[in-house]
Amino acid sequence: MPIYLDNNATTRVDPAVVAAMLPFFTEQFGNASSSHAFGSSVAESVRAARRSLQALIGAAFDHEIVFTSGGTESDNTAILSALATQEGRDEIVTSAVEHPAVLNLLDHLEATRGITVHRIGVDGEGRLDLEAFARALSPRTALATIMWANNETGTLFPVAQLAQMARAVGALFHTDAVQAVGKIPIDLAATQIDMLSLSGHKLHGPKGIGALYLRKGTPFAPLVRGGPQERRRRGGTENVPGIVGLGAAAALALEELPEEQGRVRALRDRLEQGVLQQAGPCRALGVPDGRLPNTTNIAFEHLEGEAVLHNLNKAGIAASLGSACASGSMEPSHVLKAMQVPASALRGAIRFSLSRDNTDDDVDRVLQVLPEITARLRSTVPA
Amino acid sequence: MPIYLDNNATTRVDPAVVAAMLPFFTEQFGNASSSHAFGSSVAESVRAARRSLQALIGAAFDHEIVFTSGGTESDNTAILSALATQEGRDEIVTSAVEHPAVLNLLDHLEATRGITVHRIGVDGEGRLDLEAFARALSPRTALATIMWANNETGTLFPVAQLAQMARAVGALFHTDAVQAVGKIPIDLAATQIDMLSLSGHKLHGPKGIGALYLRKGTPFAPLVRGGPQERRRRGGTENVPGIVGLGAAAALALEELPEEQGRVRALRDRLEQGVLQQAGPCRALGVPDGRLPNTTNIAFEHLEGEAVLHNLNKAGIAASLGSACASGSMEPSHVLKAMQVPASALRGAIRFSLSRDNTDDDVDRVLQVLPEITARLRSTVPA
Ligand SMILES: Cc1ncc(COP(=O)(O)O)c(C=O)c1O
Ligand SMILES: Cc1ncc(COP(=O)(O)O)c(C=O)c1O
Repeated sequence: MPIYLDNNATTRVDPAVVAAMLPFFTEQFGNASSSHAFGSSVAESVRAARRSLQALIGAAFDHEIVFTSGGTESDNTAILSALATQEGRDEIVTSAVEHPAVLNLLDHLEATRGITVHRIGVDGEGRLDLEAFARALSPRTALATIMWANNETGTLFPVAQLAQMARAVGALFHTDAVQAVGKIPIDLAATQIDMLSLSGHKLHGPKGIGALYLRKGTPFAPLVRGGPQERRRRGGTENVPGIVGLGAAAALALEELPEEQGRVRALRDRLEQGVLQQAGPCRALGVPDGRLPNTTNIAFEHLEGEAVLHNLNKAGIAASLGSACASGSMEPSHVLKAMQVPASALRGAIRFSLSRDNTDDDVDRVLQVLPEITARLRSTVPA
Repeated sequence: MPIYLDNNATTRVDPAVVAAMLPFFTEQFGNASSSHAFGSSVAESVRAARRSLQALIGAAFDHEIVFTSGGTESDNTAILSALATQEGRDEIVTSAVEHPAVLNLLDHLEATRGITVHRIGVDGEGRLDLEAFARALSPRTALATIMWANNETGTLFPVAQLAQMARAVGALFHTDAVQAVGKIPIDLAATQIDMLSLSGHKLHGPKGIGALYLRKGTPFAPLVRGGPQERRRRGGTENVPGIVGLGAAAALALEELPEEQGRVRALRDRLEQGVLQQAGPCRALGVPDGRLPNTTNIAFEHLEGEAVLHNLNKAGIAASLGSACASGSMEPSHVLKAMQVPASALRGAIRFSLSRDNTDDDVDRVLQVLPEITARLRSTVPA
């Protein structure tokens, strides 16, 4: 059995989630918007899923949740909605380390619509420059969008505080919480966050389903327009099995949060410490505290991450260079560049991302093979 | 067992489709963009699904297919892309009987972006006014978008011819083929159609997955921007189980086309003739020929469709007032209004839409209970 340590790319769907979805393909296959018997029972299951997601993120109302096709659609929707509804405001404040679902859209808007984008930098451990963030905010800011947790390093951002700062200048605040939801406690009602993106497949739910949290009263313009689904906030026949699967995954994630905070974090820590001690010279990137409990990003001095990964893969271990999106490209990660990781380590970073599916044996196996791999690679590298 | 005659709202996922999807939730759960072993086998399955869809619609190249979250997203993408890429052209030609996934977006664009929309009317049998269509086209036309088959009446539009007419003025041509794909033969390579929308759940595939056909060379601007998925035409982690399910559904649909054209059409004809003879006064709406083989829309004089439906539902038969989207709303269908269905019948229209899941027994049962229902309702209606 290969060992999967790439849970920030995607997770295995929990078998209980699949079981919850199954009846909605062939038995309760109705259209949730149909008024006949095939539709109404399905609509009730959609409501239950919405409430389960509400509980996971601490939303005040279940109708603050809009189902989408995933994290990318949610991010795009939030950004475009803010620009469409915040009249007279044409600036966006974001960070230099966001996911391409945010940064690529912002690049495009800057190029085509004359929007000004402020990309706030981070320090060597990935912490946002709070002063620069504060300076960038102004009455021209339509939206500040800062991720809750970085997908490459796991660094957490102080989004509750950032939301407050954005609110103070009348801007909306959105957070891409695709990597945070299910891994750390989230209580939106206690914050001033206006919009939040999440994605099913990052929390042992299905791919192709996600949600946008939209605080009650937040001005909104839909991205996908059609039928009256999702209170006219997202057209298209409801993806019932996906929604039910996301609901089941959310319920499990809430139950498993202590496990994530406890056992998974301990596994990650043991993995990280073992690698640092046995496979060096290398360094763990990102803040030591204030990280997701499941993620470690380790940069091996003078090695090519691609070569390390390739050898891990041959040994039956799947990890990642950073985001799955950047795979295949030879460009070093924009996140690590923003952190000014020194050139000697920039190309040697490997992300290990764990989940509740991982075991002690998985960590043992990495610690068994990785030191050999790095030693062998180092012996072939010119000094 | 209730009888399901609402297959234009959504279809039962074929059990073989579910079987094809299942391994991609818990075993081959990798991210199709990951470079390790968990990713590469999955990427191959995505390619196979793309080729299967290519075969169903007769696309010249498999990369002409862009996976989306469904018909609505595909429609929205096609329209917005045409406006973004056809510089200096700010008019759109469409029909008065399109789905809300087209009409609601166009209404919005007209209101907010100063686009001019020409909504071409239809005759009493639902046929497009070809002369009006030709007159509306001009060097200002960015896009003509006309559905292949109407969801409420099944009326087919001469899209190959319309595409040629659009091309002649340098406009792009898009067709919403959500109701056509899988029900009639489609050979895109033989047409000049630039873009086509389809949706998995209308052809016994899963909900939450669809595709946009994009002819090679067609200028394009993505709706959802993020990672490099789908050749940078649609960001977001690939919905692998959905894509595999759509591929399996496409392969089955191609196999079952003769069944759709034969047995399903015969069932529909028997149902329609039986109802017309036994449950009158009523009329079948739409062209007698040139309709989808599975759809009949029958308007009962002086009756409320809601009441007929309600009684059918009690008898274990699910049909529809028109589109599922309009359910719950008391507005008569915009399609039937455009056809100038007389006031006496406008509110009494019921859509029966069949599929390969239906049997002779289903039709027998409708013919057994419907005449009683309509007779009873008529006896309580003031003359
Ligand atoms: C003609 C037509 N177009 C578009 C759609 C929208 O497709 P989806 O619900 O998959 O987004 C539908 C069905 O709902 C339809 O019948
Ligand atoms: C931080 C972050 N944002 C957004 C996304 C996009 O989510 P999805 O792939 O579900 O569209 C991802 C993962 O791909 C992510 O890690």
